[in-house]
Amino acid sequence: MNFLEKLAQASKKNRSLLCVGLDPDPSLMPPGTGVFQFNRAIINATADLVCAYKPNIAFYESMGSEGLDVLKRTRDYIPTDIPVIVDAKRGDIGNTAKAYAWGLFGYFNFDATTASPYLGFDSLEPFIQYRDRGVFILCRTSNTGAADFQSLSCETDGGHKMLFEIVAEKVNEWNTHDNLGLVVGATYPEELKLIRQRYPDMPLLIPGVGAQGGELSQVVGYGVDAGRQRTIINSSRQILYASGGDDFATAARQAAKELRDRINSLL
Amino acid sequence: MNFLEKLAQASKKNRSLLCVGLDPDPSLMPPGTGVFQFNRAIINATADLVCAYKPNIAFYESMGSEGLDVLKRTRDYIPTDIPVIVDAKRGDIGNTAKAYAWGLFGYFNFDATTASPYLGFDSLEPFIQYRDRGVFILCRTSNTGAADFQSLSCETDGGHKMLFEIVAEKVNEWNTHDNLGLVVGATYPEELKLIRQRYPDMPLLIPGVGAQGGELSQVVGYGVDAGRQRTIINSSRQILYASGGDDFATAARQAAKELRDRINSLL
Repeated sequence: MNFLEKLAQASKKNRSLLCVGLDPDPSLMPPGTGVFQFNRAIINATADLVCAYKPNIAFYESMGSEGLDVLKRTRDYIPTDIPVIVDAKRGDIGNTAKAYAWGLFGYFNFDATTASPYLGFDSLEPFIQYRDRGVFILCRTSNTGAADFQSLSCETDGGHKMLFEIVAEKVNEWNTHDNLGLVVGATYPEELKLIRQRYPDMPLLIPGVGAQGGELSQVVGYGVDAGRQRTIINSSRQILYASGGDDFATAARQAAKELRDRINSLL
Repeated sequence: MNFLEKLAQASKKNRSLLCVGLDPDPSLMPPGTGVFQFNRAIINATADLVCAYKPNIAFYESMGSEGLDVLKRTRDYIPTDIPVIVDAKRGDIGNTAKAYAWGLFGYFNFDATTASPYLGFDSLEPFIQYRDRGVFILCRTSNTGAADFQSLSCETDGGHKMLFEIVAEKVNEWNTHDNLGLVVGATYPEELKLIRQRYPDMPLLIPGVGAQGGELSQVVGYGVDAGRQRTIINSSRQILYASGGDDFATAARQAAKELRDRINSLL
């Protein structure tokens, strides 16, 4: 089963477009809770409510080798029918990209990853070649600095387009194995609308609802595909740290359930 | 001592603009040689010939937690007077970028890192705030796919410029703490020339000589700054795998010495 099939099945089974971002921040966890212990409790509390999990590797890498151990154990703990997207945003030259792709898809066995487009096609190819895995290319990110380069107006054959539009166009062109998608932030609803209109079937990973402020009704109205199986709405902090006390897992379940149901009610 | 001072001292002491990329590939090493053992032998053989070392984190991450352990031990083994630039090409939103910056500068204690510009200023700020560390932003990379996006012609106040030129312009503008630099591949001499002419004092990290085919006389002629203390010419495979046999360290020393001396003869 490839990534998109696995995603569609999990999404259908759990009636959910919600992805929970597993971004552990020890300063926001109940004192004395280990990172793996925290992740395990969150997964136990939410596994029937999500279409995917998305650990951002930064939060593990910053703990060195121990952190990567926790990442591997976390990945292995997630039920096999729920896809795991590692948020890595990698992008390097071919030889090095091969090492990254092997690490993320081989060693860690993630179902999908995020990747950065700046280095062009040959930096993405080693990821794309894992045909049963998914690759979400950064298009319009959710942060305020996104406009610095992504919104530059660039010349192309078809007149002027913004950089993120050209990235989307290229990714669509490179998507010959049907395993590519785009990252489009919930905080830029107009850009999300444009991308979804132009690529109705493109898998979209949409971060930025909740703590980052993306408006949910717009995200659902503009971002969801017709089949409702290729849209992933991610929330991290709003769910993980719904409570900073010992009831964090119960509170996370409550927050995840509410968010999933709100998304469904807007469909 | 900040990164640029450390770089200048190492460069002067070893009369070298050469950086050795510590990119271990077990399939190219003598059988039975451990990765740390390999790195240690390379460092012992070349420490008086380089201005810096540059491990690319991909080759360590792909070995999981064990790989990050080797990376940490390698970093700690490098003599303290030689700066270590981690080639990480990270780029993520503020909250996550903070975790990356802490991991690379705090936990691992690297002197500098590479970073990707696609997410804009706020994704770089957490790195920049470590004022005694260096941050090399990807500008024009050495791979063939570099042109896919980096050479797009974009509109700016001053007329049309290519994306990589705008990145350079912005990085120069953001360089208020004098701790930023650019990555410009040796394989694109005209672009290198343009960037150096425009920013005579900008630290440049130049990968792509050797295995990737960058022509050394052009790299030196076009890329080196007048003070000869802010240019880092990186070679990895040509040096590490000069011999695949048990004499790999001696061969690496010979290759590094030849390359350093050729660079110096072209100054």
